[in-house]
Amino acid sequence: DILDAVLAFFRHQQQQNGPLAGKSVLVTAGPTHEPLDPVRYLANRSSGKQGYAIAAALADLGATVTLVSGPTTLRAPADVTYVACETACQMLECVKSAAPFDAAVCTAAVADWRPEVQAGQKIKKISRDDVPAPIRLVANPDILAEISAPGPQRPALVVGFAAETEKVEAHATAKRQRKGCDWIVANDVSAGTGIMGGDRNQVVLITAQGSERWPHMPKEEVAQRLASRMADWFTET
Amino acid sequence: DILDAVLAFFRHQQQQNGPLAGKSVLVTAGPTHEPLDPVRYLANRSSGKQGYAIAAALADLGATVTLVSGPTTLRAPADVTYVACETACQMLECVKSAAPFDAAVCTAAVADWRPEVQAGQKIKKISRDDVPAPIRLVANPDILAEISAPGPQRPALVVGFAAETEKVEAHATAKRQRKGCDWIVANDVSAGTGIMGGDRNQVVLITAQGSERWPHMPKEEVAQRLASRMADWFTET
Repeated sequence: DILDAVLAFFRHQQQQNGPLAGKSVLVTAGPTHEPLDPVRYLANRSSGKQGYAIAAALADLGATVTLVSGPTTLRAPADVTYVACETACQMLECVKSAAPFDAAVCTAAVADWRPEVQAGQKIKKISRDDVPAPIRLVANPDILAEISAPGPQRPALVVGFAAETEKVEAHATAKRQRKGCDWIVANDVSAGTGIMGGDRNQVVLITAQGSERWPHMPKEEVAQRLASRMADWFTET
Repeated sequence: DILDAVLAFFRHQQQQNGPLAGKSVLVTAGPTHEPLDPVRYLANRSSGKQGYAIAAALADLGATVTLVSGPTTLRAPADVTYVACETACQMLECVKSAAPFDAAVCTAAVADWRPEVQAGQKIKKISRDDVPAPIRLVANPDILAEISAPGPQRPALVVGFAAETEKVEAHATAKRQRKGCDWIVANDVSAGTGIMGGDRNQVVLITAQGSERWPHMPKEEVAQRLASRMADWFTET
């Protein structure tokens, strides 16, 4: 209706003057699903909430955002280009097709491995104790590492995410170096924290300068704070 | 508000006079998620839509419905007792706790197998080509077979579901005998059909008397037709 149109007009005005206007940013979000057969798959827990909130926050600051997302139940934010995918391999293809970007924020919980074999038909259970052969796994492409690799297409700023259940800072600091990304946003997704699938988050931002623990806050605020830090980085660079 | 209250009043009146009034019915629905570690799991594709629609249709006919559901994004129907669970083992426990029932409709896509080992911490990927040992599987409890097993607690009418990707009638007919249930509702969930996750369904009802192909129709209509057939069965018995 008219009110929506007026609000959208002012939002676009604000975005055009935003600190990230003219910057293209990739956000990956959600889990990936890795099929074993037509009805079974290996999955990662990830609601996609944090990634979708970051995509929205970056768009609010004027960035041209491409959100590449695995299966979630969330609605795509307004003012972002939304690309849906299912598996890690598909996600990498979608990212490559949309490249290059000025920055990338990789929040997706990409499955590290996928079943070596995908059966064309449903694997039948014949008898009660009939158990199929163990599921052999193969490594999926490492999307964060590929985006972070040096080269003419590398985004100026690459932000990775680390979901850990123990030794959060140590694991995430190691991950930053291993992947070659610039920043890592790390969180503790242990069952007790309620972060996985929840609406709040408590993160540690790890950069080359060290680590910085942010207070417990709604995922939207984590998103706004990260978007604003990225805008500052581009301004200072 | 008042209108909702008035509508609920008339719905309850109608239910009390419904053909399934006084009958307790179990409906299982949704997929199960079988954890590999705190962030990874093996899953089955199942939106839960058909099962939730059946629970609602049975309640409309006056049945006292318990809906035991794995993880879905659906809202529980009004007028049913809703029990949430995640794994096949949990689903069986929930079913046992709520038993006995006059009838059971097992629509849940229960995982046949679960990982033999569930890691307490996230399995770490150390290097790029570091692939964990194959995932060994163990058989999950067969909830439909357990409910169908002869005994004083067996529901008078047990309806199973079969999701097949080939030879639908043959596989489903064999499943009816193997599981010991009374009826099987079979459908073809091949990728091309759009049934998995979709809003319409095309099923074959298999009983001791033979098989009966129903037309392609919305999942709500499949639900109403099945609930009505169950009511007829109780009236005739």
